[in-house]
Amino acid sequence: MQADWILAHATVITMDAASTVLPDGAVAVQGDRLLAVGTSAEVLRQYTAPNVLDCSGRVVLPGLVNAHTHVPMTLLRGLADDLRLDVWLLGYMMPVEREFVSPDFCRLGALLACAEMIRGGITCFADMYYYEEAVAQATVDAGMRAVCSQTVLKFPSPDAASYEDSLAMAREFISAWRGHPLITPSVAPHAPYTTTPEILRACTQLAIEFDVPLHTHLAETAQEVDDCRAANGMPVIPWVKKQSLLEAKLLAAHCVHIDEGEIHTLKRANAGIAHNPSRNLKLASGFAPVTQMLAEGLPVGVGTDGPASNNDLDMFEEMRLASFIAKATTGNPTALPATQTLAMATRMGAQALHLGDVTGSLEAGKRADLILMDLRDVHTSPAFNREPEAAISRLVYSARATDVTDVMVNGRWLMRERKLLTLDVEPLLQAAADYARRIDIFLMGREGSLHSRLVAIGGAEQEESYEVQIKLHLEDPEPILTALPYSGLEILRHAHYREYDTYFSFSDPSQGRLRHREDEFVDDEGQVYSVRYRLTLTGPAAERRFPNSALLSRSRFIAPATHSLRFYREYFKPEKESEVSKDRQRWKVRFEDEEFFINIDRMLKPSIPGAFLEIKSRTWSRRDAEEKALKLSALLQSLGVRDARPVEQDYAEMAEG
Amino acid sequence: MQADWILAHATVITMDAASTVLPDGAVAVQGDRLLAVGTSAEVLRQYTAPNVLDCSGRVVLPGLVNAHTHVPMTLLRGLADDLRLDVWLLGYMMPVEREFVSPDFCRLGALLACAEMIRGGITCFADMYYYEEAVAQATVDAGMRAVCSQTVLKFPSPDAASYEDSLAMAREFISAWRGHPLITPSVAPHAPYTTTPEILRACTQLAIEFDVPLHTHLAETAQEVDDCRAANGMPVIPWVKKQSLLEAKLLAAHCVHIDEGEIHTLKRANAGIAHNPSRNLKLASGFAPVTQMLAEGLPVGVGTDGPASNNDLDMFEEMRLASFIAKATTGNPTALPATQTLAMATRMGAQALHLGDVTGSLEAGKRADLILMDLRDVHTSPAFNREPEAAISRLVYSARATDVTDVMVNGRWLMRERKLLTLDVEPLLQAAADYARRIDIFLMGREGSLHSRLVAIGGAEQEESYEVQIKLHLEDPEPILTALPYSGLEILRHAHYREYDTYFSFSDPSQGRLRHREDEFVDDEGQVYSVRYRLTLTGPAAERRFPNSALLSRSRFIAPATHSLRFYREYFKPEKESEVSKDRQRWKVRFEDEEFFINIDRMLKPSIPGAFLEIKSRTWSRRDAEEKALKLSALLQSLGVRDARPVEQDYAEMAEG
Repeated sequence: MQADWILAHATVITMDAASTVLPDGAVAVQGDRLLAVGTSAEVLRQYTAPNVLDCSGRVVLPGLVNAHTHVPMTLLRGLADDLRLDVWLLGYMMPVEREFVSPDFCRLGALLACAEMIRGGITCFADMYYYEEAVAQATVDAGMRAVCSQTVLKFPSPDAASYEDSLAMAREFISAWRGHPLITPSVAPHAPYTTTPEILRACTQLAIEFDVPLHTHLAETAQEVDDCRAANGMPVIPWVKKQSLLEAKLLAAHCVHIDEGEIHTLKRANAGIAHNPSRNLKLASGFAPVTQMLAEGLPVGVGTDGPASNNDLDMFEEMRLASFIAKATTGNPTALPATQTLAMATRMGAQALHLGDVTGSLEAGKRADLILMDLRDVHTSPAFNREPEAAISRLVYSARATDVTDVMVNGRWLMRERKLLTLDVEPLLQAAADYARRIDIFLMGREGSLHSRLVAIGGAEQEESYEVQIKLHLEDPEPILTALPYSGLEILRHAHYREYDTYFSFSDPSQGRLRHREDEFVDDEGQVYSVRYRLTLTGPAAERRFPNSALLSRSRFIAPATHSLRFYREYFKPEKESEVSKDRQRWKVRFEDEEFFINIDRMLKPSIPGAFLEIKSRTWSRRDAEEKALKLSALLQSLGVRDARPVEQDYAEMAEG
Repeated sequence: MQADWILAHATVITMDAASTVLPDGAVAVQGDRLLAVGTSAEVLRQYTAPNVLDCSGRVVLPGLVNAHTHVPMTLLRGLADDLRLDVWLLGYMMPVEREFVSPDFCRLGALLACAEMIRGGITCFADMYYYEEAVAQATVDAGMRAVCSQTVLKFPSPDAASYEDSLAMAREFISAWRGHPLITPSVAPHAPYTTTPEILRACTQLAIEFDVPLHTHLAETAQEVDDCRAANGMPVIPWVKKQSLLEAKLLAAHCVHIDEGEIHTLKRANAGIAHNPSRNLKLASGFAPVTQMLAEGLPVGVGTDGPASNNDLDMFEEMRLASFIAKATTGNPTALPATQTLAMATRMGAQALHLGDVTGSLEAGKRADLILMDLRDVHTSPAFNREPEAAISRLVYSARATDVTDVMVNGRWLMRERKLLTLDVEPLLQAAADYARRIDIFLMGREGSLHSRLVAIGGAEQEESYEVQIKLHLEDPEPILTALPYSGLEILRHAHYREYDTYFSFSDPSQGRLRHREDEFVDDEGQVYSVRYRLTLTGPAAERRFPNSALLSRSRFIAPATHSLRFYREYFKPEKESEVSKDRQRWKVRFEDEEFFINIDRMLKPSIPGAFLEIKSRTWSRRDAEEKALKLSALLQSLGVRDARPVEQDYAEMAEG
């Protein structure tokens, strides 16, 4: 019988259900399919082909399946490392993505990722990103197989102004690409915490309607699970089940923090899991319960995740890590042995992508997705051969991506003798370097300015730029507190806080200073009834002194502090930090038709006896500011203040000593 | 001023104390030393050289320091994987080492390891093995720098019949090699649990006498610490301190299970630590407290450990893992950032080897140990350059051993443009393949025979090969127990046990059957006063039946079971296992001038009512056995046994059902 290609006399690692290894094996390929897999003697007796390759000394195995990645992020590889997930994501990835992600970006990133993956023996991957149409087209041009998942988020994304737009894009993408020989289109509600129940249900409906996989991130961090429990009274898997998600052909990335019951639930739902060892370690997400998932019979694939968080697309590294971590966390060096590990990266990975019938093993009838490797180099020698499975051990524990020599997908050669046949890498690298240059400039501009860094993480608003103020130290504030109601001032508002401030200062003082303030609102009984967190960025001041008062001109931006102090510390990387806390009584008053704030502050940290009186006003107008400054002395007199010591230091300066 | 080499226009990662990165840097080399390191402008202004290399686009950095390995074990790479430490060590490594390790083996393994290490950018390593003289000579021939440590063990080793011989060899080796420009000779008491206090003290004396490092394994597993606590009432570090070990220039490998106090003790002793991430994970030893050690100021290097347990000599993999594990185990993705990680693999590694003045960073005056890398490939692109340190991040998180292009040690080029200059790899690979073939044959021979596998782990002795026996089932054993004292039999000994047996059986019944027996000796009050563990291997029996009795001829080996049942299960890999437990009263008696054993066994598992009476005798002589068989009926009558049912099954068969 006639085949197109026969690869003979190789060590054939079939990764069939029994993980059969054929020491002198052969594979016959016809069109896009595997016609036969067996011993060389059998295959050469039954088949002839115009192209019979003598693969002596080589290993032939199914192409590796990268079960979860974001391929366009090759262009963001190494952009920012050694950061917390939130700083990395909110401080770097998302601002850069907002600025740069386009169909061109996605195509270029996908092509480069395909080059890296083909070289490293990957023939199939599951992607999740924006403009997935561009990713799919790039994948087809490179000749690879992929599940391409169009992301849906509750907030505006680089490719959609609203989630309704994302859903419409996903529907259009799936309709257009369904049935493609290489591409399985799919929908990706990003994660439970970045979507809504409505989005999850709509995505499930879409996936069911078109019978395509649904790709998402689940139970990635302990925080996610804690938040889900707090908000919904249950952990992540039961909650997404309630939103119907498990009714779809699910590919769930991460599943780091799930319990036995959740593993069972996922198994019953026929879910596939993508385990991403490098990335879970690098961002300290934790150790996924892989051996338990495997014991339950869940198909667990191995994924590289995006190259911005890994920082590569190297399945050999992931395999080794998957095995190593399983051994170390269970305390059992026999856990996740080489054969089971390679199964995760091939057969089980394909099952996790719901492509188990199509790829993932060398078995007659499946698509011809295979790779050749040369394991006769120094780092893979010597070869012990008393058990055929030793070839798998050599492959998992010693081999590298660079040992892959040839790659075939769907019956087509994508690489021969380490030469890529479908991609010309040089112009891609140049285009990537150009993106990197532009991103560096964008970030340097931003990092050159505290303000643009503040803006990058959202919500900053500019306040009035002129500030009139007077500040006095009082031995005893009681006389003023007593005088205030009788001062003739119209009191518009009164509040009582405890304020906990952290000032970040920077080596370049022209950048200004950032204050993180926690305002505890205190009621008449001294109980805290509300808390407010704010960031204030104040630029350096131009100052003009008046008798007893000063007029400052400076930029001032205020933003709600929605993240933790720790986040801001890591994001802004201040050179110095100082803390101030005080008890503040604050009145908003009207005096001679102008509004002023009066603060009576008792310093708690640094502890200073007595109190400070501050009178302040802000305005957009210089003339207005000058007029107010001139009125301050009169206002002070109406409060009965005499002989108090004017203070020129602001509170941050007091804290710095 | 004149230099021999100037490497200009590179990204120079100096790894000096400030980890300075020079985006357009240069290095001048004269003889074996670094003459200058600075910006290209500075260096080219001050120095001239016959060889000025334009290294544009390349990265120049100090050669990597592999802080702990066993280089000859390249020849055992992939010999046995996915096993427990004890099975791996006692069942495979040590038997093969006993058989194969020779000066030739060590030289070949070391040369291959040097080839792999040079290719992967390693310029210096700390080795510990046998015939260290051969390792040192191979290292010099390859042109590398190394601390070479002669192993001392309490038991006979491949290169010494006694530890006195090892110590003498170590002394001779150190005397001969001290002061060598590339080799630092050293002594290696293998570990606390494989040596004695006397050995530890003698090694310390030797190291101090010659002012050389002392290299050892400490606190590698939780078991080691538990055993040390049980035996010595303290954990490992205080105990070895008591044996004077910390007075030497210590290089301690592993230190996985040490506490804060022990870290402090090591710091005070100026010890160097070798952290071996892959190997600690692969053999499930645990997670070393690396961030705590670094916080305390201990110089922690990174090691590959031997390639038989890793399974490669790839410091890029180790660096990445070291950082990943630190992040994951502390839950802090900012832990062990790229720069600190690279420091561990360079400057700190050299300090750990007590070679901090010699190598580990690019600083004028140090030896010229440096490497060039090309980080412009697909998997290391794009390059973000807004911070010079991004080059380090790219190197640690994306680069591979195969990105190293050039290697210089002590001012001599060992590799240029990926071509090895001091080693011809092909004949080495062939010689390694030859060793692998012989080792495979040795292990197949052993694995073909249960007996040789039993012998391989020590202590098996052959017992008499003829066995006469009778076995009856009794409804009630009481009449016999009552009759025994009056039977006219001379009772030589009586004992009472509870016996817990596990039978391993194998697909090939000609291999025989292995029994693991736990004998609990029970006193008159029914209290266990002693326990004995034994292995018994019995071959298949040739059988001849007599009235009421049988004569068996079979091989029988007995060995003390010094390891756990779990160990033997993993080592022998039985096809089937069955358990038997029973209460046994056993008498040794004399009857008509022949000795017999009488057992009264009550079966606990499987639970069988009544009891079994066994009468047995063993002898080396067939004629003797036949005579004894004929006397059994008479002996039975003297016990007053009548109408009891003879039983042909042995206990293992009963358990198997």
